[in-house]
Amino acid sequence: MRTSPIILPVILSGGGGTRLWPLSMPDQPKQFLALTGTQTMFQMTVARVTNAERFMAPIIVANAAHADMVQQQLSDVGVVPGAIVLERCARNTAPAIALAALRAGAGDTPLLIMPSDHVIGDEAAFGRAIDAASDAVADGWLVTFGITPTGPETGYGYIKMGAELGAGLQRVSRFVEKPNAVNAARMIADGDHVWNGGIFLFRADAYLAALKEFAPDILKAATAAMAAAHINGSQIVPDASCFAASPAQSIDYAVMEKSDRVAVAPVAMGWSDVGSWDALYDIGAKDAEGNVRSGNSVMLNSANMLIRSDGIRVSVSGVTDLIVIANGSEVLILPRGQSQNVKDILVAHATNERNNIDPIDHSQSKN
Amino acid sequence: MRTSPIILPVILSGGGGTRLWPLSMPDQPKQFLALTGTQTMFQMTVARVTNAERFMAPIIVANAAHADMVQQQLSDVGVVPGAIVLERCARNTAPAIALAALRAGAGDTPLLIMPSDHVIGDEAAFGRAIDAASDAVADGWLVTFGITPTGPETGYGYIKMGAELGAGLQRVSRFVEKPNAVNAARMIADGDHVWNGGIFLFRADAYLAALKEFAPDILKAATAAMAAAHINGSQIVPDASCFAASPAQSIDYAVMEKSDRVAVAPVAMGWSDVGSWDALYDIGAKDAEGNVRSGNSVMLNSANMLIRSDGIRVSVSGVTDLIVIANGSEVLILPRGQSQNVKDILVAHATNERNNIDPIDHSQSKN
Repeated sequence: MRTSPIILPVILSGGGGTRLWPLSMPDQPKQFLALTGTQTMFQMTVARVTNAERFMAPIIVANAAHADMVQQQLSDVGVVPGAIVLERCARNTAPAIALAALRAGAGDTPLLIMPSDHVIGDEAAFGRAIDAASDAVADGWLVTFGITPTGPETGYGYIKMGAELGAGLQRVSRFVEKPNAVNAARMIADGDHVWNGGIFLFRADAYLAALKEFAPDILKAATAAMAAAHINGSQIVPDASCFAASPAQSIDYAVMEKSDRVAVAPVAMGWSDVGSWDALYDIGAKDAEGNVRSGNSVMLNSANMLIRSDGIRVSVSGVTDLIVIANGSEVLILPRGQSQNVKDILVAHATNERNNIDPIDHSQSKN
Repeated sequence: MRTSPIILPVILSGGGGTRLWPLSMPDQPKQFLALTGTQTMFQMTVARVTNAERFMAPIIVANAAHADMVQQQLSDVGVVPGAIVLERCARNTAPAIALAALRAGAGDTPLLIMPSDHVIGDEAAFGRAIDAASDAVADGWLVTFGITPTGPETGYGYIKMGAELGAGLQRVSRFVEKPNAVNAARMIADGDHVWNGGIFLFRADAYLAALKEFAPDILKAATAAMAAAHINGSQIVPDASCFAASPAQSIDYAVMEKSDRVAVAPVAMGWSDVGSWDALYDIGAKDAEGNVRSGNSVMLNSANMLIRSDGIRVSVSGVTDLIVIANGSEVLILPRGQSQNVKDILVAHATNERNNIDPIDHSQSKN
């Protein structure tokens, strides 16, 4: 194994999902919340790559609307970024990574692409997987990290692993879209599939070359946007109209599924994308009754609950297996195992608002 | 049957329970809340006795701290009271009724004593029970209204009915304290017991004479307090130090259980004391899914819930048979059928506050 060159981390922080509503909101997406401890997911991601012998100062790619929050959260943990690239419109991951690769100088620097809202419980295992990938990366391979599955999840894409390229590294045989339950169970039984965790390692020039071959419009738009960028200290704002011309495509769709020099480093590292309240319960520290608690709550004779309040006091007695989330002027209550229903609730809210239904008007009405 | 004399309603509004926490609080007790419709329980009680052919303007006995609320709620329904007697300390029902009887002039006027926080669904049945009691009342009997039981409740006192005094009126054979489940079931099976609903009809002078015989200290303190009362328009504030000298006793304990001229008028009138969230569910109007709702809520695939919010939005999906009450900065969640556990929650709150436990400090701590 050659000596691993120093790696440039690229942290993608443009997401704005609502699966953790009512905590995650457009102006406060998941990565900026302290969901599993005192640091936010973004801060924990940044902290993962502060070893200066191995990592350069990171490039952050974020929504321009979150610029102050990004600066504040970096400052709170004492991290000075290499650059903060601020998108004024979102174009998915392939263009976002292109901006970072261009900023990195388009040379042979290895870029470690990481979403800012994932938990990695075993960072040493992650480090070993990075080592396992390094030779192939230096040779120009595009490497994705494949999460060893812990069950037949239907919420993730899968990767079928092919021939071994080296210790801990295999060719990608096939990317598989989010499967149904039957196919997920079959892939788990086969044992040759891993989850697609959205974490990547490749040389900047290798990625840009792949873009040029498979998604030239993305490369063209990103290049133009960076050429006309507004730069203020470490903050870089790519030209918005140029960047808006880019197709909005994921790196998987634009590059990884098309290139034939794509490898996967399988790794079991206590990974979670904290993609639902159920996922947060699963990774949370449980008390003796199996409750995962944070914030202002009083619980009597209650077990196996996820209960969280950022403000009001939640008092429960004699209930089990519920998710209860209070934030601001909203309270959400779901059975555990059904946290995917958040999206239906948000649809109902939007429908009520569109129809100008006054939600206060239920007093004893018999309908 | 003689022509019924005109009745003076006495509405007891001094209560301050917490069984409907977090809605009922010391400064906003149950009777002043709109629990079952747009009017408060107090307003509904007042509205029950506005027929001028039958009832005089009522005497209200209330906590002095609630004077403004009482005035406002009377004014909102256009009722001019005969008097508002404002207690500066609470001494239970026997002394409170003594104040009203003295204010009424201590003559032969029939007083209809009513708590201000009960629901009576069938007011015509109540009227017929009053008629059935009137002759005996004119003859000096103390009459209590006995609620025909709908089940073996253990939360109420019972009255064993004795010999018939007239149509719809029987001697009281015995008062029974809140029973255990076995005894409650036996009394229901026997068929000769009714619930003690805390509603009474008697002449003012008959009540005061009974007090003189069985609880002279109460009569003495109430008489002194009224003699030194501060009067301001319809508001009467009995002297606080005189009144404080009274024993604090219920009318049942002080008089009804001791006199032998006590009768019971059994009545089935859709009565509820709304003594718990479960009771409010039972009397509430249900939607097609069996939900009783008021306030700001969004419900998907949820059934048989009592859900109420005075403020924040409560969103639920896929849950059943829960009580969810949001008010101000508090949310309460209980299974239906366990609303008696409110008191344990209040004990836990008080304990936390005494111990200076910071309820916010549960973030992921594993204890």
